[in-house]
Amino acid sequence: MKFTISPLLNNNLKEKLQYKIDNKTKPIGALGVLEKVALQIGTIQETLEPKIKNPTILVFAGDHGIAQEGIVNPYPQEVTTQMVYNFLQGGAAINVFSETNNIDLQIIDAGVNYNFEKNLPLIHAKIDFGTKNYRLEPAMNNEQCLKAIKKGAELVEDRSKNEVNTIGFGEMGIGNTSSAALLMHYITNEPIENCVGAGTGLNAEGIQNKTKVLSEVLKKHHPNNPLEALATFGGYEIAMIVGAILKAAEHKMTIIIDGFIVTSALLIAIEINKNVIDYCIFAHSSNEQGHQKMLEYLNVKPLLNFNMRLGEGTGAAMAVPVLRASTDFLNHMASFESAGVSTKSE
Amino acid sequence: MKFTISPLLNNNLKEKLQYKIDNKTKPIGALGVLEKVALQIGTIQETLEPKIKNPTILVFAGDHGIAQEGIVNPYPQEVTTQMVYNFLQGGAAINVFSETNNIDLQIIDAGVNYNFEKNLPLIHAKIDFGTKNYRLEPAMNNEQCLKAIKKGAELVEDRSKNEVNTIGFGEMGIGNTSSAALLMHYITNEPIENCVGAGTGLNAEGIQNKTKVLSEVLKKHHPNNPLEALATFGGYEIAMIVGAILKAAEHKMTIIIDGFIVTSALLIAIEINKNVIDYCIFAHSSNEQGHQKMLEYLNVKPLLNFNMRLGEGTGAAMAVPVLRASTDFLNHMASFESAGVSTKSE
Repeated sequence: MKFTISPLLNNNLKEKLQYKIDNKTKPIGALGVLEKVALQIGTIQETLEPKIKNPTILVFAGDHGIAQEGIVNPYPQEVTTQMVYNFLQGGAAINVFSETNNIDLQIIDAGVNYNFEKNLPLIHAKIDFGTKNYRLEPAMNNEQCLKAIKKGAELVEDRSKNEVNTIGFGEMGIGNTSSAALLMHYITNEPIENCVGAGTGLNAEGIQNKTKVLSEVLKKHHPNNPLEALATFGGYEIAMIVGAILKAAEHKMTIIIDGFIVTSALLIAIEINKNVIDYCIFAHSSNEQGHQKMLEYLNVKPLLNFNMRLGEGTGAAMAVPVLRASTDFLNHMASFESAGVSTKSE
Repeated sequence: MKFTISPLLNNNLKEKLQYKIDNKTKPIGALGVLEKVALQIGTIQETLEPKIKNPTILVFAGDHGIAQEGIVNPYPQEVTTQMVYNFLQGGAAINVFSETNNIDLQIIDAGVNYNFEKNLPLIHAKIDFGTKNYRLEPAMNNEQCLKAIKKGAELVEDRSKNEVNTIGFGEMGIGNTSSAALLMHYITNEPIENCVGAGTGLNAEGIQNKTKVLSEVLKKHHPNNPLEALATFGGYEIAMIVGAILKAAEHKMTIIIDGFIVTSALLIAIEINKNVIDYCIFAHSSNEQGHQKMLEYLNVKPLLNFNMRLGEGTGAAMAVPVLRASTDFLNHMASFESAGVSTKSE
């Protein structure tokens, strides 16, 4: 599994971008974070006039063997399937935010435990009918894991042909905060109790049970490398996002990283190619405990902090207007010179 | 000066709104701050289907007598005039963000020290050619202050005829962070050194000088009430925003509060009618020191934290997509029932 991702260069173009930003009719630095976003996107797109083209969110859905036990998740496994139908009918939060912010949305069956009709407006990429229960055996075998990564990459490759240069990822999968917590623990060495949160809404007792179950899982499995960890803990939607992130960076897209689950996929992607992080903008700080620590581990600051914890790519969708405003000011604001505005007195 | 502003009621409608929010296809509370915004706007508009109609930003420009000395401001006073031309030509940050986020923008000459041509697309509401220097005498007399408040109210009254139900305010005025700092000190009793910041970009020494000058000003003037404080410290743009905020609340508009200057106007507006705060959504936490403490004084949390410190209403403009997403999810997301999604297991 190889991805060719150029590191972003701290070169002449970056200096020119900074000069352009500093000469807009505003005090130096007065647009704060938006200036950093503009600089990053300009550097990614290798131009002084970066644009957000056809922003797209791919939502990957997959089921988790462990969810059938109902101990780590307050909602039944069937909700994954039901929510896929909700996505297809336009009724979920990610549908609404994509519409509000003019984002293209695609839903992918990465491995839902349901046989969807072929004629639905759904991308059929099912690897299997849900992962295996990792309390008993690895969630998937290595072949399935590689197949999922490759499929995620292919879907982004496909999008790149539609001139998409800005992409975000979302997920739906009852039980997937458990996979994300296990992957987080594996990569960051953070104690498992700091990685486990309420997910879709466990109470304190539920979180305690979930932590106990996942601690036992960690005693059972000892993956030898990040890919084996991904195969062991799942899920298919996370594996596809790993491949999608890496391919997006290969295509020099700006990648909008959503919350807890998507960031766990990024942790694995970085292990495959560390340059990928240069292409990432962190949309928001999720209210799922653990996400904050993931962001600290990556040493990054998210754009938004709305105490959201929904997944589906909703955080990424909310960040799109911020990216648009950032590139728009760079392209359309007047400079001190062009507007005839006096600069700061010496 | 009287404004009739109904307090928002904690009634049956609020309960119904909360029920509607909680029955959307998402875990309870999973949309965090957006749920609070939806609830507030629904309560303001007194409907289960609130909408953001014709969001508008009014930018008030005014000059400050003290700015001619060049001790509290790194940019020369002429920049106020130059920036008004920049607004009219579409080159400022607020023009760009209004375009990006589909916001109607109007520029008002509240009291700029320049004689603008009559045929410009500018609302001519000049009270005087800048305020007086409050190191020597009050910035304006009481009559001028009341005239400015009344004018601000009239402009919003006018907007209300265009079915505007969401409004934000911005300002431009070299020297106006000093007025805002003095008003903040007057209302909150916060020591003046905690109210003074870098403004458009003073260095540490500049901030020290500014603090010294404003401390002397406070020794000279002892206003007897908030309106007298407003007249004493200025400026015309701030006084107009006071009237505009109050009139907007009277019309049950959702008011998007921008940064340091606009919040200082709100501090005065609250003294005139405390119910006004129910209609306010706080757009962002400005990087101007003092703003954070203003927000703490008001016991409110801002939506965004982009380290911006530009004024012009740019923070308010960035918040509009958040308001749209909030009302959109309330109107367009499916409920568990309508989507056939299982609720949480008991």
